[in-house]
Amino acid sequence: VIAASILGATGFTGALLTEMLDRHPEVALEALTSSSYEGRRVTDVFPHSRVAAAYVAYAPDRVAGSDVVFVCYPHAEAHPVVAELLAAGHRVVDLSADFRLRDASLYPKWYQFDHPRADLLTEAVYGLPELYPEAIAQARLVANPGCYPTSMLLAALPLAREMKLELVVVDSKSGVSGAGRTPSDKTHFSAVHDNFRAYGEVGHRHTAEMLQELETAAGASVPVSFTPHLLPLDRGILSTLYCRPSASQGTFEIPPEDEVRALFVRDYSAEPFVEVVEHTPSLREVQRTNYCRLAVRTDPAAGLIKVVSVIDNLVKGASGQAVQNMNLMFGLPQASGLESVV
Amino acid sequence: VIAASILGATGFTGALLTEMLDRHPEVALEALTSSSYEGRRVTDVFPHSRVAAAYVAYAPDRVAGSDVVFVCYPHAEAHPVVAELLAAGHRVVDLSADFRLRDASLYPKWYQFDHPRADLLTEAVYGLPELYPEAIAQARLVANPGCYPTSMLLAALPLAREMKLELVVVDSKSGVSGAGRTPSDKTHFSAVHDNFRAYGEVGHRHTAEMLQELETAAGASVPVSFTPHLLPLDRGILSTLYCRPSASQGTFEIPPEDEVRALFVRDYSAEPFVEVVEHTPSLREVQRTNYCRLAVRTDPAAGLIKVVSVIDNLVKGASGQAVQNMNLMFGLPQASGLESVV
Amino acid sequence: VIAASILGATGFTGALLTEMLDRHPEVALEALTSSSYEGRRVTDVFPHSRVAAAYVAYAPDRVAGSDVVFVCYPHAEAHPVVAELLAAGHRVVDLSADFRLRDASLYPKWYQFDHPRADLLTEAVYGLPELYPEAIAQARLVANPGCYPTSMLLAALPLAREMKLELVVVDSKSGVSGAGRTPSDKTHFSAVHDNFRAYGEVGHRHTAEMLQELETAAGASVPVSFTPHLLPLDRGILSTLYCRPSASQGTFEIPPEDEVRALFVRDYSAEPFVEVVEHTPSLREVQRTNYCRLAVRTDPAAGLIKVVSVIDNLVKGASGQAVQNMNLMFGLPQASGLESVV
Amino acid sequence: VIAASILGATGFTGALLTEMLDRHPEVALEALTSSSYEGRRVTDVFPHSRVAAAYVAYAPDRVAGSDVVFVCYPHAEAHPVVAELLAAGHRVVDLSADFRLRDASLYPKWYQFDHPRADLLTEAVYGLPELYPEAIAQARLVANPGCYPTSMLLAALPLAREMKLELVVVDSKSGVSGAGRTPSDKTHFSAVHDNFRAYGEVGHRHTAEMLQELETAAGASVPVSFTPHLLPLDRGILSTLYCRPSASQGTFEIPPEDEVRALFVRDYSAEPFVEVVEHTPSLREVQRTNYCRLAVRTDPAAGLIKVVSVIDNLVKGASGQAVQNMNLMFGLPQASGLESVV
Repeated sequence: VIAASILGATGFTGALLTEMLDRHPEVALEALTSSSYEGRRVTDVFPHSRVAAAYVAYAPDRVAGSDVVFVCYPHAEAHPVVAELLAAGHRVVDLSADFRLRDASLYPKWYQFDHPRADLLTEAVYGLPELYPEAIAQARLVANPGCYPTSMLLAALPLAREMKLELVVVDSKSGVSGAGRTPSDKTHFSAVHDNFRAYGEVGHRHTAEMLQELETAAGASVPVSFTPHLLPLDRGILSTLYCRPSASQGTFEIPPEDEVRALFVRDYSAEPFVEVVEHTPSLREVQRTNYCRLAVRTDPAAGLIKVVSVIDNLVKGASGQAVQNMNLMFGLPQASGLESVV
Repeated sequence: VIAASILGATGFTGALLTEMLDRHPEVALEALTSSSYEGRRVTDVFPHSRVAAAYVAYAPDRVAGSDVVFVCYPHAEAHPVVAELLAAGHRVVDLSADFRLRDASLYPKWYQFDHPRADLLTEAVYGLPELYPEAIAQARLVANPGCYPTSMLLAALPLAREMKLELVVVDSKSGVSGAGRTPSDKTHFSAVHDNFRAYGEVGHRHTAEMLQELETAAGASVPVSFTPHLLPLDRGILSTLYCRPSASQGTFEIPPEDEVRALFVRDYSAEPFVEVVEHTPSLREVQRTNYCRLAVRTDPAAGLIKVVSVIDNLVKGASGQAVQNMNLMFGLPQASGLESVV
Repeated sequence: VIAASILGATGFTGALLTEMLDRHPEVALEALTSSSYEGRRVTDVFPHSRVAAAYVAYAPDRVAGSDVVFVCYPHAEAHPVVAELLAAGHRVVDLSADFRLRDASLYPKWYQFDHPRADLLTEAVYGLPELYPEAIAQARLVANPGCYPTSMLLAALPLAREMKLELVVVDSKSGVSGAGRTPSDKTHFSAVHDNFRAYGEVGHRHTAEMLQELETAAGASVPVSFTPHLLPLDRGILSTLYCRPSASQGTFEIPPEDEVRALFVRDYSAEPFVEVVEHTPSLREVQRTNYCRLAVRTDPAAGLIKVVSVIDNLVKGASGQAVQNMNLMFGLPQASGLESVV
Repeated sequence: VIAASILGATGFTGALLTEMLDRHPEVALEALTSSSYEGRRVTDVFPHSRVAAAYVAYAPDRVAGSDVVFVCYPHAEAHPVVAELLAAGHRVVDLSADFRLRDASLYPKWYQFDHPRADLLTEAVYGLPELYPEAIAQARLVANPGCYPTSMLLAALPLAREMKLELVVVDSKSGVSGAGRTPSDKTHFSAVHDNFRAYGEVGHRHTAEMLQELETAAGASVPVSFTPHLLPLDRGILSTLYCRPSASQGTFEIPPEDEVRALFVRDYSAEPFVEVVEHTPSLREVQRTNYCRLAVRTDPAAGLIKVVSVIDNLVKGASGQAVQNMNLMFGLPQASGLESVV
């Protein structure tokens, strides 16, 4: 049995992780920490929960017995405690962005802070299980990917590995839970219901992860234009990718759709949580699951390969992927504790 | 032309009132006040608006030229400024609850504050145009009714006038805009979407208005049990009323449905904004209008008369009714400025 | 292992039952029948499903090996096949209304058909597990209750057993899935979204079950006034009950809230799927579960006891309850296969 | 006063057009035709309506006195009646796709029928008022544009006129009303609510209009890749366009954002219904209005100009634009009858 703790357990991702680990057959929860809800029971804060536990304030000794600690702190607040946990000998899955970028010099640009631990950035493994399974298995520190990058990278990597891409347009549509649990004008029901909008049209922080991993896979930088939109629903991300292979002598050669789909099938046939489908998937198919579904279409007249990708932003895009990473780290089947819907 | 100002113009009711008065053919807006948004233009705060004006901080001289001032302050904060405005010679429509109850002793019980101006409570007219049209026309101070009481009283008054009622159950379902514009856990999209709940199951403040006006109409107190619920939509209130006439010698005599409906038709045939319909109305039919629609059903086996009432909580339940009151106060047709949807 | 078949497996209840039985640790699915989708795979019709099976046309020999057959046919179409299945020696859980009323003479009134099998009506057990657990365990034929009656009876029975009730008002609000999968003007997205309405204001068929079981429990008929409403969401029923104990010498004696709640706790403390809570529950808490949550409030001024009841209409209100009944029929723990959300 | 009739007045666009023309100060409605609802009053079919009229079956003499006839028939069913109406001397606004493409040979490919009236295709004017105002003013036959092309063309034309574009990606998200009023599995509330999907990923019919008008404006064909998606809301289209100017010597020269925006301001400064805004618009801002709002962003790193475009699909995307065309045809101000929300 793996002893696990969750730091920042009352945000959307922490709360869902609590449910998932509580049911996980190989996990025992040690501590659930919260500064706002210290002393209160999980069921008081989340009436739908059936987890019999109470929140405690974080202190190193509260998690002393934990084999793994999940950190669900906001960006820029996670890295000090992660460093502390590693020093104390814990393995860590960090759900913030603080260790997702390998190059420390990118943090001031994308996240507006100077990262003090370039050494840990080098050590951290980007926690996309379909990309780095062996490294994750050995890692002390796993940087759990962002929700948008998860949906985008699973859709783009099979192409980036196989052909030179001169452009990847990523048009993503996310449910509101991605904005977190803190109330604001932007998450007020009356602002979202029956409405739809784009936001962060250029320069969204998640672009950095997409660029990093796409470049790593392709061996060269790939231009990415990423635009997130806010859906009037709670959970799920659908990303529509428009990928343009580089022209050869001025002509775009788009392979037949079957050949393109075969690339995806080849890359994902052994993956338990990525499914290449022939129909166009909807969010409903993956909500409350850890699955990513991908559909491929070609548009030769426009010189494009389109990929539609759907995930649950809180599961495969956050807490479910964190559990999947933990499973890899401790030698469990990847799907352990992830079979039933959440 | 009537010069009008709105105090607290950036809440949901103030903002909608701004739109309605801006289009009103007989009104010129003098001042729109806001403490939070002083100096900002209406269109900066509400991108969908087309009102060319900016918010100012409230001060008595800002509204010096106003024939009428609409006060959209929270409960307990409105009465001092209302008193000040009246003293300065303005006529006032107050959208708070501060002058709805005629008996000052009820304020500590229902609103947890001592009301300092029993004299103004006596003078204020309860602004339900279908109930007190003449008094409203003469009033210096109109207390605009609550949204729930509006939906309930229009449904119950024709019965209360005609027969002794031993019980009125009011099961109301409201859109989220009734909770106001301030973000909170309760109005977060993720808490409301795809969800439904009751709240304030016993003792909701609006009960006080219902009891007061029903007793006035009936000449005797009528027991009211009021339960509000929160719908996953933005605008509208549907109230289902279950009215039990007093038994005569142990038997409930429920008149035929046609006779009951005739009571409603009689009371409302001359009213421009109350429609007695034969089908069961849905919220859609009254959203963005100042109409109330009522349907009557009898359930003799249970000894009940049911009335279904629908309004837009922000229009007939707040800002539209405020305009209707202003129209009465200044001798305009009741429907002036209220014809088109908002 | 219990061999089970589902007749009419492509409606909302049949499809959900398919998912639940497929995961049930003690069940093996024999046949899933459908006239419209014969020959198609489950995953073709329901892309979110992971059930590896195909639909067949119904014929007696298709289900010959089934210990239990679940019938998900429309009202008036179920009883002939149920009779046939019983004659062939199968045990049956019927999800239609065809065997819910014990008195054959009620069918022409409430369901507009003459029931040919008064004998089976006498034999059938009304499948509310909290009410008739022993009879269900022995039954050849279980009549699975309607969704509204389930939400209402669990809320009213503890009161009906304990005190004489002179009135029970049932104001129910249901998600759209209760209307079934067949497209119609009433279930078109544009008719339901951002809208709310009452329907069947007097005389809804489900009233018959409520009257029958309440009378059985109370030993005398109890007047019930039932009004269903349609919520702009997919799954869940919230029923608000207003129960009036009979007056003694003209005075309503409403017991203290704690005493009333104690009646509920007493009746349900051993039930795995009914929870008496102190807060007011929302639909979210029970969606995709087999739980019913109940909250009790007293309103002595109006002479009423209020009960708020929430269930998932497709789970505790249909397919989950059917599984719970099957568990009782075959000596399994009631919660077998019902622990995880669906 | 203009006498107007509407053929096929009970679909979503016909019903909205009925409301708009009923309120139009310069229009008198002659006939509203419907095959399904002949003889029924408008208010019986649409309870929210206040139009005092009844539907009649279409016959040429029913509309004999009409200066203009609006045809709201399905594609392929409109052209015979349009030809008949023109022959009888009426001016026609056709809301179907039957006269949008100037080249008859495109109809078999995009609409699967042979178009018998190449002469009328040549004569018909594509009814985008911002593009062909003079021709519309003179036209006997105006082909009202599709909803997606309206949202796309207003966003792309200012660029297409000014620079050579080598790619236009159009990622559109539409409310459900765009799918029409006929109930189907795809428009069932339970299929759409809390869900999101792409559809018609390659080869959607509306692409033909986009290609035709972009080529006309640019003087050369422009590759367009169009992907529609279905939003869980009723009204509105948001299109996100990714426009790539042709590279000069392998380098993409993206002008500064202000310069690009200036192109849009220049083209639309005199247009009453197109607004170039600096913030990112949401659907809320244009729902129930005839406005299109456009925002421009540049992404030089990816070599792209992004344009976000929002309209109400039933107003500017259909019925409102039809009224705007009628206004042009009869010499009225373009905004006549279009000022208030609908």
